[in-house]
Amino acid sequence: MNNIQQGLNIAIVGATGAVGVQMLKMLEGTSLPISQLKLLASKRSVGKTYSFKGYPIIVEEVKPDALEGVDIALFSAGGSLSKELAPEAARRGAVVIDNTSAFRMDPDVPLIVPEVNSEALREHKGIIANPNCSTIQMVVALEPLRQQYGLNRVIVSTYQAVSGAGHTAVQELKQQTEAILQGEAPKVGKFPHQIAFNAIPQIDTFQDNRYTFEEMKMINETKKIMGIPELHIAATCVRIPMAVGHAESVYIELDQEISVEDALRVLSNAPGVMVVDNPAQLEYPMPVDAVGKKDVFVGRVRKDPDEKKGLHLWIVSDNLLKGAAWNSVQIAEALVQLKMVTI
Amino acid sequence: MNNIQQGLNIAIVGATGAVGVQMLKMLEGTSLPISQLKLLASKRSVGKTYSFKGYPIIVEEVKPDALEGVDIALFSAGGSLSKELAPEAARRGAVVIDNTSAFRMDPDVPLIVPEVNSEALREHKGIIANPNCSTIQMVVALEPLRQQYGLNRVIVSTYQAVSGAGHTAVQELKQQTEAILQGEAPKVGKFPHQIAFNAIPQIDTFQDNRYTFEEMKMINETKKIMGIPELHIAATCVRIPMAVGHAESVYIELDQEISVEDALRVLSNAPGVMVVDNPAQLEYPMPVDAVGKKDVFVGRVRKDPDEKKGLHLWIVSDNLLKGAAWNSVQIAEALVQLKMVTI
Repeated sequence: MNNIQQGLNIAIVGATGAVGVQMLKMLEGTSLPISQLKLLASKRSVGKTYSFKGYPIIVEEVKPDALEGVDIALFSAGGSLSKELAPEAARRGAVVIDNTSAFRMDPDVPLIVPEVNSEALREHKGIIANPNCSTIQMVVALEPLRQQYGLNRVIVSTYQAVSGAGHTAVQELKQQTEAILQGEAPKVGKFPHQIAFNAIPQIDTFQDNRYTFEEMKMINETKKIMGIPELHIAATCVRIPMAVGHAESVYIELDQEISVEDALRVLSNAPGVMVVDNPAQLEYPMPVDAVGKKDVFVGRVRKDPDEKKGLHLWIVSDNLLKGAAWNSVQIAEALVQLKMVTI
Repeated sequence: MNNIQQGLNIAIVGATGAVGVQMLKMLEGTSLPISQLKLLASKRSVGKTYSFKGYPIIVEEVKPDALEGVDIALFSAGGSLSKELAPEAARRGAVVIDNTSAFRMDPDVPLIVPEVNSEALREHKGIIANPNCSTIQMVVALEPLRQQYGLNRVIVSTYQAVSGAGHTAVQELKQQTEAILQGEAPKVGKFPHQIAFNAIPQIDTFQDNRYTFEEMKMINETKKIMGIPELHIAATCVRIPMAVGHAESVYIELDQEISVEDALRVLSNAPGVMVVDNPAQLEYPMPVDAVGKKDVFVGRVRKDPDEKKGLHLWIVSDNLLKGAAWNSVQIAEALVQLKMVTI
């Protein structure tokens, strides 16, 4: 693809990863004016070819020079690479949209879910952080309720797919599953324990307070994105044997009482939310139905039996799309809309 | 097995089901004096032979006459059969321990988890109910904390294995998994949707209040077993692709503040509870580790970040054993200990 038309020079850093390949797909579907697209990855992926709107694009090695002239760089190649190269890219004039946890809690870095806080983009200093997958889908569903009824408490338990841990994690689930079906012992590698036909109550490393880093991401990032530092929020994050699609059982307490009907109405009108909540027809969101879709699906909406201001929700989304690639591309679109990037 | 020694005449009604075969195993390991054991099932299973302590036992058809002379009848053959035959068995002098939901909320029927309320057995009128699997493992873990610190609130999200829905459900998970691995469409039968590589936020039928019956079982049975009608409790019950072993993410609020150390100490000393909680070694309870064991495993114990009296727990147990067969056999043992059954 040559720079023959006016438009953006975009780079995907980590283009061959589970999220990177979805970023490419999401860019294909966007209305962003793209004049040049660079696919950057580690040395061993150099030379691989991907198709973008019919054009073949060859993967190049990720290094500082490759980021020269880039307008928007979408990073998804691990926290240490982001820490090293995102400031380099920003110094060269790119706006970095970083999908790792490297900069999310940095007070100088906006942490953005466009449906919730795109205005915070105006404060960016070259690096913008894309939140954790399980956080994004939750705040998209909670923000519209919070706007009308106030929010003071969240207790979430997650049901997370393995693809959040990359291609090799999906392969490991498949291989372990095949081994068990054939009566063989499953080989453990990517996860600390067998994930096939199991549930592992640990995602990312343990912190001193006995919460995992994934749980602390949900707690801290939700407060930052929603701008409610005083929010009472706790999380339990669990990996279960699914390839794609995170689900969440979420309890919230609002400032005011709300009926199920009002909650469903507010959610139905909310950007990025699709309500699937028809108990009579056994309809509710499920990971297999969310795969490949950009929406956040909400269902099982019901009042707490005892707490008048309490509501229970079941929130599902494709962790690679709204949880990662699509949210990053949405941030790029918002930058253009807000004229924060000039074409 | 002939009635040559003094002892109990025990019947398993539904002996060929997923729980029935585990009841037989649990009876093999018990110290109960058993002089005769009847295995009863529907017509199509008549003639099947099972081994009990080396003796072959032939399955007989379940009908009122077959319950004559039985001291203790363990029922696990569905609610409608229990409704029909449990009163018949009781009328003939048997004490019925019923594993279905048919009588659980009947005020004349004790609902028993021996670690929690075996004294309530003294009130029985011929029928004793075994609680729902997901309820049992939770109350075993919560009761010791409640005894020392008081309990006023529970919010639970479950991760439940398919075997709670019987042998055919386990087969369906296996067949769907094989189909998907071979690139074929999975056939849906026992569950309302695909369960392989998915999470279904529905167990049992929906009630008018938008909760499922499984969720209402957890809510109502917990109050009855623990004797706390005013307990604030909500549940979200989810089926995930595992064969055996239920897990639960449980948030509780106690009447008094408690440290993690104290909670772990109380749980470690509690009957039926095994603490597995060593974050540094990545040790916590998991379904695959609980299979075949009688204990309730508790881990991931941590304070709520904001609520001083709030605690988060992860509770796992074999849903066919402590959740069903083992709890039923424990009730039989308790009846003998309390001299409520004469040998």
